[in-house]
Amino acid sequence: MSDLVPNAASDAALDRFLDDTKDSRLESFKALLRIASISGIPAHAPDCRAAAEFVAADLRVAGMEHVDVSETGGHPVVYADWLHADGKPTVLVYCHYDVQPVDPLDLWESPPFVPVVKDGQMLARGSADDKSQLHMHIRAIEALLKTRAALPVNLRVVFEGEEESSSIHLDAWLESNKGRLKADFAVISDTPFFEGNRPAIVVGLRGLIYFQLDVTGSTIDLHSGGYGGAVDNPINALCQIVAALKGPDGRIRVPGFYDDVVELTAADREALARLPFDDEEYRQSLGVPALHGEPGYTTLERIGARPTLDVCGIWGGFEGEGPKTIIPAHAHAKISLRLVTNQDPEKIFGLVAAYIEKVAPKTVRYSIERLGDGKPSLTPIDGPTTQAAARAIEASFGAKPLFMREGGSVPVCASFESILGFSTILLGFAPPDGRFHAPNEWMSMTNYETGIRAIARFWDEVAKLETI
Amino acid sequence: MSDLVPNAASDAALDRFLDDTKDSRLESFKALLRIASISGIPAHAPDCRAAAEFVAADLRVAGMEHVDVSETGGHPVVYADWLHADGKPTVLVYCHYDVQPVDPLDLWESPPFVPVVKDGQMLARGSADDKSQLHMHIRAIEALLKTRAALPVNLRVVFEGEEESSSIHLDAWLESNKGRLKADFAVISDTPFFEGNRPAIVVGLRGLIYFQLDVTGSTIDLHSGGYGGAVDNPINALCQIVAALKGPDGRIRVPGFYDDVVELTAADREALARLPFDDEEYRQSLGVPALHGEPGYTTLERIGARPTLDVCGIWGGFEGEGPKTIIPAHAHAKISLRLVTNQDPEKIFGLVAAYIEKVAPKTVRYSIERLGDGKPSLTPIDGPTTQAAARAIEASFGAKPLFMREGGSVPVCASFESILGFSTILLGFAPPDGRFHAPNEWMSMTNYETGIRAIARFWDEVAKLETI
Repeated sequence: MSDLVPNAASDAALDRFLDDTKDSRLESFKALLRIASISGIPAHAPDCRAAAEFVAADLRVAGMEHVDVSETGGHPVVYADWLHADGKPTVLVYCHYDVQPVDPLDLWESPPFVPVVKDGQMLARGSADDKSQLHMHIRAIEALLKTRAALPVNLRVVFEGEEESSSIHLDAWLESNKGRLKADFAVISDTPFFEGNRPAIVVGLRGLIYFQLDVTGSTIDLHSGGYGGAVDNPINALCQIVAALKGPDGRIRVPGFYDDVVELTAADREALARLPFDDEEYRQSLGVPALHGEPGYTTLERIGARPTLDVCGIWGGFEGEGPKTIIPAHAHAKISLRLVTNQDPEKIFGLVAAYIEKVAPKTVRYSIERLGDGKPSLTPIDGPTTQAAARAIEASFGAKPLFMREGGSVPVCASFESILGFSTILLGFAPPDGRFHAPNEWMSMTNYETGIRAIARFWDEVAKLETI
Repeated sequence: MSDLVPNAASDAALDRFLDDTKDSRLESFKALLRIASISGIPAHAPDCRAAAEFVAADLRVAGMEHVDVSETGGHPVVYADWLHADGKPTVLVYCHYDVQPVDPLDLWESPPFVPVVKDGQMLARGSADDKSQLHMHIRAIEALLKTRAALPVNLRVVFEGEEESSSIHLDAWLESNKGRLKADFAVISDTPFFEGNRPAIVVGLRGLIYFQLDVTGSTIDLHSGGYGGAVDNPINALCQIVAALKGPDGRIRVPGFYDDVVELTAADREALARLPFDDEEYRQSLGVPALHGEPGYTTLERIGARPTLDVCGIWGGFEGEGPKTIIPAHAHAKISLRLVTNQDPEKIFGLVAAYIEKVAPKTVRYSIERLGDGKPSLTPIDGPTTQAAARAIEASFGAKPLFMREGGSVPVCASFESILGFSTILLGFAPPDGRFHAPNEWMSMTNYETGIRAIARFWDEVAKLETI
């Protein structure tokens, strides 16, 4: 793989080790992907436990110390460290071993937990988000320790099992484990490259609010002929609420919702405009008739720097074939909001809940169940660690990384800052079109292999830093 | 059962026959209810066929002639006749042997196709709508033929198998069977009594339009973080369309929708106002926080004489436990409209489709699949056949029937008029709170037993008529 290193001195022994262990690495990656560690579905709790144990065993094989499958009250956190690089920085590495649900199952080309490599793509649930990146970190550690008997920096790893179900127990776990989590900064590997699979470092992430809205009408389904016009319909009422939350123009109508949003500066807008991105190409790749979003902002601005609201699921009444004429007893929606810098999830949820109370018809009842949230975050581009990551990426992938704002949420980023007191580098390697959360999720095996080398180089770059 | 006949001369032999055959009648009714003849679900086609054969065999046992399981291209129609009452009127009797789907199955107290009698209620899918009434007609015929060796009138029966899936093939069947369908008028038994189980004759029925609206966005589910704000969300778009169709006030917003609606006369409104009906009692029985509908009309006016729009089912995206953060690729709704006198389903569908085209966001694609329709109908209260039915009801149930406008649709009513050229009496016996189309559908066994006597008496009353 040394042809991937055009402009940096290479570690020949490390490269040879990685070349020699390619087959066993692939088998180990597949073994991890076979575990159905869906954290959001209670029936999969044993799979999450199995994934944690698998990861812990793998960390021991790689040479990490103090490996611990640590209880959280939910799915465990896997902790390990190696702290023998005296005088060198200490870095906390975060990935997650849990995955999203897999339905609709019938849209998968092959079963989601039967990993298959095809045309350089590893197809499986979790292949991109986030098992590949977790596995890459372990392999980089292993390669360094096997070839040098030491790491260039001190490392602590925190591999979580609840990222896909809003990291419910992580904050409390971070609080109570503060003593063994001291570090100079954190690296989170859970983000994608830019469009066209261009290497990128994410410097902005959106926050999240996720809740379920349940609307109920009569105690039983009613005949739509005998009762239509006499009582309200929970589905119609739910649609009214959803339509009231966000206008056809993509603007969220909740009063006060945009008050705390930090507007993009002219420099921010110029930087985003310089990114190689084509609206029409993007539109075609998604197969939509037109792009859509808040007026006055470019697509990249809307994704990276503006908040949104999406219904992730809706259901109620009859879903079978043919006509069934009922007014259903209840209807349901799962709603996510993406937040940007300075929007506080707690405050915004309060505004949303108050607005729903105002717009919900009084002819039905409703309830809201919160299913998690996360704070938005933004990292300085010119910081020494961000620049060290950029050098490691360029050395391995042969191209300078782009600095991008990603629309997704990694709530743990904000937790590291507020609970542990240090900043985070988002060093991710997933392909941007990797179908995270969707059927046929895939990981680029080139990104995977080259990324392992980039991670090892990053530790070498960090070891050289005089300030963090 | 002769104590049920307070003010009419009784047929002692007929009453005795019905008393003596009560147990076998119950078993035969249960056997019919055990057949899962769900016409709207293709997998249940063999059950529909089995129900048709069961009904045909039962008609032969009862003594009917020319019994025919007649092909329609869909589920068969069961035809039979008895035409030896020379000089007497000929009546066409219509019921249907098919039933609605049964989901949500987990809300049934006992399995929907395992009929159980409890506290005088027969609990099963189709027990009220409409197998009971079909079975009552056969039993009345049987009782008359066994005790008198003749019927007082000439009868033709048409028992349909697609009423719950919009009678798709019935019109064509009526056209091609005109020759054997000559009659003076029709009797449809597929309607309920009034609130409080008061005997009633339905003199108005609403029409129906039913369609499925499918909205599609991107070709695959997208991560709501990575793409939220860049593309429209099919669920949000669907909710916008639904919210645009009907306002929070219950008024349908489709331009021209109300143009052909025949307004209630002062006399109509007085007649409806005289019916014993209490809004608060009704509200409590349904368990809703408030009644709801078009302003300016009473509840009975809204149900009986005003059109409505209801979403009968909606689905899209993630319906599982916990949070899953996607923008789904597609979303779907099943929508029914109830029409009133002079609203033509074809014309109204055109208006609705044009309006959806106008309000649907151009950032998604959509398609509409029509799943059936039916014309509204209204019957004169003072006609001789309506009055004959009223006398038969009073003689059997001991109370004058109310004349009501029902919100449901029996499209065949309009077909009898337009294709066969005769009017219809809606003589139904279901309990008004019988949970038609919902879990735990039930039939009052008192209505069933007394109704058989009322039907037999109705034929005696019709035989006495000098004009129809």
